[in-house]
Amino acid sequence: MFNISSIYPKKEGYRFDFDYYLNTHMPMSIERLSKAKGFKGVSVERGVDVDEPRIESSYVAMCHYYFDSLENFMSAFMPHAEELQGDIANYTNIQPIIQINEVKITR
Amino acid sequence: MFNISSIYPKKEGYRFDFDYYLNTHMPMSIERLSKAKGFKGVSVERGVDVDEPRIESSYVAMCHYYFDSLENFMSAFMPHAEELQGDIANYTNIQPIIQINEVKITR
Repeated sequence: MFNISSIYPKKEGYRFDFDYYLNTHMPMSIERLSKAKGFKGVSVERGVDVDEPRIESSYVAMCHYYFDSLENFMSAFMPHAEELQGDIANYTNIQPIIQINEVKITR
Repeated sequence: MFNISSIYPKKEGYRFDFDYYLNTHMPMSIERLSKAKGFKGVSVERGVDVDEPRIESSYVAMCHYYFDSLENFMSAFMPHAEELQGDIANYTNIQPIIQINEVKITR
């Protein structure tokens, strides 16, 4: 199984509209991708700062898509790539880091 | 639900012993934490580089622990913090980024 992560690192003067991200962008993305072959799950997450012990978030948000294979993800994503990537500017000025991970242990 | 992530960014001259990480460190960590109150799941992942389209991994590895609450995680982790953190040098010279995320959407 693979995790295709979109990771939004904090940067000076960043803008991130969580209302749009959680209520418009990600539901659209999930609607498109979750019907595809090999879809296993998705987690959409917001970074939080913790006071005690002090842990400051390095990332504003993360999204993890789990698919059986990378090929399954690519087949699911490519037909919607332009639409989904074109929508990013509507909620943030952060360029997301795309990270592909192979899941080695899961419980 | 919260995701407590340990994220290992690539750096010049890094060392990362996946055999030790996957077969010794993480099984020990999971054995300690998965019995605790509020444990929901864990995913241990290895970054991969993709050729077509070219996506180079920014992170060597990631581990995501899901707990009902941050308090549950802290209660689970703190008694083992010294042992688990002290073991990091046995598999890597990368200082992991600890990122706390609140899970907003899960499917």
